[in-house]
Amino acid sequence: MMYKYEHGGDIYTEKLTKDGRPFVDYSANINPLGLPLGIKQAVQQALKLCINYPDPFCRELAEVTASYLQLPQDYIFFGNGAADVLFRLALALKPGRALLLAPTFADYEKALRTVDCKISYYNLQEARDFAADNNDIVDAITPDTDLVVICNPNNPTGQLTSRELLVQILDKCRLVGAHLLIDECFMDFVSEEKAFSMRDLLATYPELVILKAFTKTFAMPGIRLGYCLSGSSELITALHQSGQDWNVSILAQEAGKAALKEHEYLAKSFKLIEQERSYLRNRLAALGAKVYGSEANYIFFYLPQPENLPELLHERGYLIRSCANYQNLQAGYYRIAVKTRVQNRGLIKALKEAIKTCALY
Amino acid sequence: MMYKYEHGGDIYTEKLTKDGRPFVDYSANINPLGLPLGIKQAVQQALKLCINYPDPFCRELAEVTASYLQLPQDYIFFGNGAADVLFRLALALKPGRALLLAPTFADYEKALRTVDCKISYYNLQEARDFAADNNDIVDAITPDTDLVVICNPNNPTGQLTSRELLVQILDKCRLVGAHLLIDECFMDFVSEEKAFSMRDLLATYPELVILKAFTKTFAMPGIRLGYCLSGSSELITALHQSGQDWNVSILAQEAGKAALKEHEYLAKSFKLIEQERSYLRNRLAALGAKVYGSEANYIFFYLPQPENLPELLHERGYLIRSCANYQNLQAGYYRIAVKTRVQNRGLIKALKEAIKTCALY
Repeated sequence: MMYKYEHGGDIYTEKLTKDGRPFVDYSANINPLGLPLGIKQAVQQALKLCINYPDPFCRELAEVTASYLQLPQDYIFFGNGAADVLFRLALALKPGRALLLAPTFADYEKALRTVDCKISYYNLQEARDFAADNNDIVDAITPDTDLVVICNPNNPTGQLTSRELLVQILDKCRLVGAHLLIDECFMDFVSEEKAFSMRDLLATYPELVILKAFTKTFAMPGIRLGYCLSGSSELITALHQSGQDWNVSILAQEAGKAALKEHEYLAKSFKLIEQERSYLRNRLAALGAKVYGSEANYIFFYLPQPENLPELLHERGYLIRSCANYQNLQAGYYRIAVKTRVQNRGLIKALKEAIKTCALY
Repeated sequence: MMYKYEHGGDIYTEKLTKDGRPFVDYSANINPLGLPLGIKQAVQQALKLCINYPDPFCRELAEVTASYLQLPQDYIFFGNGAADVLFRLALALKPGRALLLAPTFADYEKALRTVDCKISYYNLQEARDFAADNNDIVDAITPDTDLVVICNPNNPTGQLTSRELLVQILDKCRLVGAHLLIDECFMDFVSEEKAFSMRDLLATYPELVILKAFTKTFAMPGIRLGYCLSGSSELITALHQSGQDWNVSILAQEAGKAALKEHEYLAKSFKLIEQERSYLRNRLAALGAKVYGSEANYIFFYLPQPENLPELLHERGYLIRSCANYQNLQAGYYRIAVKTRVQNRGLIKALKEAIKTCALY
């Protein structure tokens, strides 16, 4: 049995188009402004430190992150990307049963399977645009639930769950003795008037855990840096016990410290993504796609024809993420990243051509 | 409860000596020649790639490593340092009971505890210089053993276990249905005439797993790169399933590719370490220490007085690793790295001073 990779961002299996150009990767949701110069310089500077083991407590990075987030330093646990933190959380909590949204990011399930956790799904309804906006999700949390995971905004749908509903979910978790993991990895890309974090509730709800990444926001998935936040010192200790001491490289720690100084880059990114998200949504709708939520730096849409859309775009040099392998989705659902106007124009042009090749159109 | 870090290499808790100089760290076993220029340049070049997720299969790195080791590419699983691979192995194998040497590297136990594995110890005897050279270790492997871990040369003792005995252990593992993990992370530093790897047996023994690190050999612990070797495709698949897909950063993958070209650096390192190991062993013995095995790039010795040796050396700007917290050891056992002559002279001078402060001397 060969292990199968099932995420976006696979630029390695086939490296170049027939014309010898690199593919434009719409299948991974990375800040289109690229790696900030300040991070590049920090990594270069950090090379001379790499003859040492990394600080297992990431103390300098934790200090600046705590000050950035206005939270106590000991609420933060860093990892080799948010995905590393996720697998550690599974091991630290060893939940017997977890409730997941469907569809949602596939690694929650992958991480929970490593500790033989039973998974229940709350199936999001197409009729409600796959939004997790309904009180019956609270009823789905039962006394045998040990963990609830809400991705907010949800990946791949881009739909936001309201703060009101999240507090209800949190109260129900407390009642049944479950943890609530809210993945806010994409919250940084939500428009200011809609965006919110639940981190102000960490001090009062020790059952709340928030997952965050530097990866997407600062376009550094190849460097790897993520973290989680928890007001429970027992959980932070358990996270340290559930893996190696040196999981965050010195390069990633220094990159993170530099990233938090990139205020201008962030402001520019938000503006670009807001504008380009709107451009892509409109163009996709005009091409006959049904566009859902999509509050983050990616667009989730349904376009049943042509069935071989990913292949047709691949021929034209574009990678997109088919969502057919997500729980509770089927063929015809796709997720694309939001990129720069030049790239987005190219994608829309390729999409038009792909649709034209379809006899049913 | 606060998590306690118990390894060497903690240069972060206290950064500078009273005179404002950085400590000379003898508590972590890193190649004293430092990070090769070729690796530095490779990391700098790789920065532009970091807007992408890393290749989850490390294909380019696997290809050069396979050719370097003369092994099939699909025998190799890379991790964020050997420690990352170790914790994944625990999760992939979920052994019910494991047999460990005592003393040995503490993270085997830490990793196995995450999956609630019961630990049996084979207590190495001081009377045999803590060598694992006795057939009764084979008898300690019983039908309820699921995993045996042999660190070769052993950390902290530096003692080698012979190939003959390892084959007997391997055969017994096969008989009882156990895996044998041989940690060869420090084998690169053993003198040519004594060094050997068991990797030629991987094809015939699917129960054999070999752990290796780039970290120590190429002085890159801050970059993080390690791997394991197994002829079992089931185990390699299970390792992929037991954690995130992107555990090896792009920077680490490129560093690894560059490292395997550093033939001259390696030759120079072996020579230096051989010479300095001999220097330190002789000087330590002359100062009244009992020096054990020490076949790798570190020296294991016993010096019961002064009791506060680490503190006395700390005052003089040197960090050493007290081995008092290892299973089956007590106060008075220490491990120091092998460094350059200038540094080693400084350490020996500080040791002499420390011993002089001791009234009993």
